[in-house]
Amino acid sequence: MKFTLNATDGRARNGQLMFDRGAVDTPAFMPVGTYGTVKAMTPEDLTEVGAQIILGNTFHLMLRPGTEVIRAHGDLHDFMHWEGPILTDSGGFQVWSLAEMRKISEDGVRFSSPVNGDKVFLSPEESMRVQQELGSDIIMAFDECTPYPATQEQARQSMELSMRWAGRCSVAHGVHSSALFGIVQGGMYPGLRKESLDALLEIGFDGYAIGGLSVGETEEERLMVLDNLTPHMPSDRPRYLMGVGTPEDLIAGVQNGIDMFDCVMPTRNARNGHLFTRFGDVKVRNARHKTDSGPIDATCTCYTCKGVTHANGSVSGGFSRAYMHHLDRCNEMLGPMLASIHNLHYFLNLMQEVRTALEAGRFGAYVTQFHADRARGV
Amino acid sequence: MKFTLNATDGRARNGQLMFDRGAVDTPAFMPVGTYGTVKAMTPEDLTEVGAQIILGNTFHLMLRPGTEVIRAHGDLHDFMHWEGPILTDSGGFQVWSLAEMRKISEDGVRFSSPVNGDKVFLSPEESMRVQQELGSDIIMAFDECTPYPATQEQARQSMELSMRWAGRCSVAHGVHSSALFGIVQGGMYPGLRKESLDALLEIGFDGYAIGGLSVGETEEERLMVLDNLTPHMPSDRPRYLMGVGTPEDLIAGVQNGIDMFDCVMPTRNARNGHLFTRFGDVKVRNARHKTDSGPIDATCTCYTCKGVTHANGSVSGGFSRAYMHHLDRCNEMLGPMLASIHNLHYFLNLMQEVRTALEAGRFGAYVTQFHADRARGV
Repeated sequence: MKFTLNATDGRARNGQLMFDRGAVDTPAFMPVGTYGTVKAMTPEDLTEVGAQIILGNTFHLMLRPGTEVIRAHGDLHDFMHWEGPILTDSGGFQVWSLAEMRKISEDGVRFSSPVNGDKVFLSPEESMRVQQELGSDIIMAFDECTPYPATQEQARQSMELSMRWAGRCSVAHGVHSSALFGIVQGGMYPGLRKESLDALLEIGFDGYAIGGLSVGETEEERLMVLDNLTPHMPSDRPRYLMGVGTPEDLIAGVQNGIDMFDCVMPTRNARNGHLFTRFGDVKVRNARHKTDSGPIDATCTCYTCKGVTHANGSVSGGFSRAYMHHLDRCNEMLGPMLASIHNLHYFLNLMQEVRTALEAGRFGAYVTQFHADRARGV
Repeated sequence: MKFTLNATDGRARNGQLMFDRGAVDTPAFMPVGTYGTVKAMTPEDLTEVGAQIILGNTFHLMLRPGTEVIRAHGDLHDFMHWEGPILTDSGGFQVWSLAEMRKISEDGVRFSSPVNGDKVFLSPEESMRVQQELGSDIIMAFDECTPYPATQEQARQSMELSMRWAGRCSVAHGVHSSALFGIVQGGMYPGLRKESLDALLEIGFDGYAIGGLSVGETEEERLMVLDNLTPHMPSDRPRYLMGVGTPEDLIAGVQNGIDMFDCVMPTRNARNGHLFTRFGDVKVRNARHKTDSGPIDATCTCYTCKGVTHANGSVSGGFSRAYMHHLDRCNEMLGPMLASIHNLHYFLNLMQEVRTALEAGRFGAYVTQFHADRARGV
């Protein structure tokens, strides 16, 4: 993986990650494909909405279908037919979320599979092995997510464990064609965050992620952590803010120098009839949309809102709010399908607009307009 | 609507229905789009798998979203963005299925909406009005479905009511650009079926459907009814066997001179991991598919099995049994999406093969091969 910076504005950066499997323009949003599928999207749908890289969940995939099934197809790309780059998480966040069902030691984490109760062990070495087997283009270090809230001592203990694990990940990864990213921990303590970053820099990674956010902290705390941390991050390596977030969170992240994001929000909210638009969010379930023959967002260019123009000039697709409302009320699968296309298109187009604004040197004006538009309402 | 016959072989017929909205080659299979969407399929997916006409359910659409919402978009084509012809059923079968919740009189049927309990009245005149409002290209007469089993006297009473209603439908439909089909009833009694057909011919319809089958009768009874009825049906009008059925049922129907079919089976079974193929049916849920990296059917040309070749020569799609098994086990929406594409492609391609065989004068050999292939197993 090769990272090049193209334009900056304050801390905000526009660049490109180059992989054997293609380029990823940054700032980038990565749709989440937990079980080897971005929910309700075909690979063609993903390409259509502008996805250049997607995320796979190591924890889920190692339990179902298991790496031996995926390896029988080649790797995860071949199994799910996504030809672009894939980033896999380490499984650390998911095993941490199991709470009572897992036991963390210096060695790693023992847990019972939520699928069938099998005893499973995940460690830095095991996570590297699984992610390499998945054929991931960006492999994430195996870490412990620090709980929120945590005392400074708890946050330190947790962060230091993650840093020892980061070292083991680096050794286990060895000389391998996939990129390896380290993950900064340290809870809501800027000093610990800085120590964590320094420990990772000492080991040396291809990129640096910020973990342990979106775990219940306030927006103020999250921005404080970013504000204190990103100025110390090396400018020649990509920075990835894990599990974030709303359109506003993404813009704030870019303003703080973040290059990569992932979040289940566009697809999860789509399944609940929550649509993101330039002019605020639309809950298609609301009765006011029942008879509205207009599109979700008349300025949106996605298949759901605008349709596609075929070679012969005919247009298909381009559905109304009333139709989306109707599909939702009738529990029709086409509802989540069209909503997922729309929401992912919105998130990916937002990043495209940000990149264009950064290139053109008008990012500040873009952000002002973004907030004004979003507050306008639909 | 204009119907032309192209080739015959015994009772089997190949022809074409021509509408302002396009041609429908017969024998034709119509995917069912109950609520203004063929479940889990976009309009483009439908075109891709070869659908030329789809079915909409009047009963469901009049309750949700209601004709006034659909009329705000133009008609049902505009609401759901399906540009080809649409056949709508009359609602008769659905209100009949409500059992305790409905009361049938000479006038029509009073029932409580299963959606919100509202009192609703459906009659020949009301069904015509609703179907015209939906902009249907083929409107079905409003009839009473005869229960199974029924005594000859019960079947006669029911059939005679349906024939009086058929007359009212014809009057109410008036001079209108949409085609109107009559529906033959009469239970499992060939004499009553013949009387019913004669009554409809007396009124005069654009096409003739056979109703009251697939209600629990044996295959032998169904074939007996068809065998006795179709020779009397006018050769210059399309014949539609309602609600049927399996691939074998379709072939038997074609052999008995049927031109049109509809059934929820391809899409409903798809959602349960039941896939139809040339070589028999595949239950993707079975453990034996867990590690199978081959396609559902190596001879199938659908997106799910074979993928699509893009302008630049790259191929995408073409998924394995193991992947389909995995999607099903994880309840991933992409599973029903891909399975629906495959099953509808199978049904529509089956009809295409039948038409080609009829045109080429080798339908007998085709049917022999069809049964041998289906029995072979996958």
